[in-house]
Amino acid sequence: MKTILLKNRPKGRPSVSDFEFVENDSPLEIKDGELLLETAYVSVDPYLRGKMNDTKSYTPPFELDKPVHSMIVAKVIASKHKKYNNGDYLAGMLDWKTQQISDGEGLTKVDSEKAPLSSYLGILGLTGLTAYLGLTEIGKPKKGETLVVSGAAGAVGSVVGQIGKILGLRVIGIAGSDEKVELLKSKFGFDEGINYNTTEDMKAAIAKAAPNGVDIYFDNVGGPISDAVLFNINQFARFVVCGAISVYNNTELPKSVSVQPFLVRNSALMQGFIIFNYQAKYPEALKQLSAWLAEGKLTHSETVVEGFDNIPQAFIDLFDGKNKGKMVVKI
Amino acid sequence: MKTILLKNRPKGRPSVSDFEFVENDSPLEIKDGELLLETAYVSVDPYLRGKMNDTKSYTPPFELDKPVHSMIVAKVIASKHKKYNNGDYLAGMLDWKTQQISDGEGLTKVDSEKAPLSSYLGILGLTGLTAYLGLTEIGKPKKGETLVVSGAAGAVGSVVGQIGKILGLRVIGIAGSDEKVELLKSKFGFDEGINYNTTEDMKAAIAKAAPNGVDIYFDNVGGPISDAVLFNINQFARFVVCGAISVYNNTELPKSVSVQPFLVRNSALMQGFIIFNYQAKYPEALKQLSAWLAEGKLTHSETVVEGFDNIPQAFIDLFDGKNKGKMVVKI
Repeated sequence: MKTILLKNRPKGRPSVSDFEFVENDSPLEIKDGELLLETAYVSVDPYLRGKMNDTKSYTPPFELDKPVHSMIVAKVIASKHKKYNNGDYLAGMLDWKTQQISDGEGLTKVDSEKAPLSSYLGILGLTGLTAYLGLTEIGKPKKGETLVVSGAAGAVGSVVGQIGKILGLRVIGIAGSDEKVELLKSKFGFDEGINYNTTEDMKAAIAKAAPNGVDIYFDNVGGPISDAVLFNINQFARFVVCGAISVYNNTELPKSVSVQPFLVRNSALMQGFIIFNYQAKYPEALKQLSAWLAEGKLTHSETVVEGFDNIPQAFIDLFDGKNKGKMVVKI
Repeated sequence: MKTILLKNRPKGRPSVSDFEFVENDSPLEIKDGELLLETAYVSVDPYLRGKMNDTKSYTPPFELDKPVHSMIVAKVIASKHKKYNNGDYLAGMLDWKTQQISDGEGLTKVDSEKAPLSSYLGILGLTGLTAYLGLTEIGKPKKGETLVVSGAAGAVGSVVGQIGKILGLRVIGIAGSDEKVELLKSKFGFDEGINYNTTEDMKAAIAKAAPNGVDIYFDNVGGPISDAVLFNINQFARFVVCGAISVYNNTELPKSVSVQPFLVRNSALMQGFIIFNYQAKYPEALKQLSAWLAEGKLTHSETVVEGFDNIPQAFIDLFDGKNKGKMVVKI
């Protein structure tokens, strides 16, 4: 049985040496009401970086020398729990361990017949929920409006764009390579794509792609890309601030264009979005996402890395944008 | 009859030479349905600075070589209008002229018996409406929460703080002199005041004054003061972004601490507030403000400058914080 612990709080960009692998060969024994789980798929996500710092946030930080946890799909390999049986697959927040014991609290049974197991970490998991609820609850889209998505080829971004199209928006994606921009248009149906790595004047490029201005900005990245969007917003624009991957690794406090004058001038709204505040809406959202998936209106893209030992590197690769769509590790 | 025109679009801080005085002695003749108005009180407000730039905003910019306008209380000195008579006082958006003709459109009759005329430019005008509706509509205060107000000794800020106290909040005001801070506590009933000009570590000072963290920030200033508040916000904090006087005169685009990571971590909201979007709520708000005023629960403070020729200087003095409370010019 292997476990991955957080060894150091990363300074800036995380490295593999911030994590420690521990092996333990004594067999795990379950008691009444418990399950023995074998990890099948591990989700690695940008938000985990925030939890590696020792700062106040919406969830407590990871503890040093304790296992890291994230969303995981695991198989029940022994059960003394009345609800779950051997061979069931469960999804939930679990430790980065090859095997672990759980009392089932906070876990949900998933159906491997209905959708691939990994999709419960992606389009039918927090990724899809974040995209759908962030866009609808804060973005409040109205048909005909213009939506800009940053990190558009990422897990959440690619779903946001597709939902935007389903809801009748003009959708512009910002991503970091020509290949990703091409994918946005050919695979995910975005109207326009902008490669921020090769575009000198982002402000002008957004203005060109959004001739009617920007009504909704689904922000996964923060930093200079988000600054450029500010110049193009319409009256009553809504910023869904879902992530700020571009600054998560900054050791100095990042500075940006002051947003306040733009917000005042445009009566605009900027709101931080944390999926965990919307749990009451999960069932309704999953119903809608499953329906669209079944109708073939949503496609999802995954980068699957193989092997438990590669979890830390897969996490680190997120910050280089090495993933297309959801990054998962198959054990 | 004198008129004040905008002569130049100010670069940075406005100066008196950006305005031009024009005199015209030919008498004004009114037609059927028109009024001849004599200006009594002129409101000068920070937001006018934005309209002096040639940039897209919520209202069109002032035109060069045309009269500047703002909220004014004027006396009817001749009337061919069926609604208004000689001697009536009307409030509304009017030109910076000693006398002018109007068709009455957009003007409201005010009662000099009920409240001093200048109060219709302040606590019973846009100032009071901005304070009340900004705080309630975006701030959504709940009893026991902590409110921080910047520009707290200013026209809007001093009313926001008082309403905060009426609604059961802990209220902390930020202002630019010890005298103003003293006034916040002695006259307006704030719980705490911070002088940003003599406080080295604003972040720590706010933390000390707000031991339970900041739930609502009513922001009149933007810039470094607002940055310092960011570090002290609670989960689900609301920022009412009402103004950004600290950066209105910047010629270079101001940079601040990136707000996005704070908004995400705290599921916080930041929204630009423009009073003109809330016109439907004016009657209800004015009813409440008048009631509190009559009950002696609200006091208001004015800086009254005398003389039409001093309007531009009074406006410029706002940026040095020379006003305490609402700045008005009495003609």
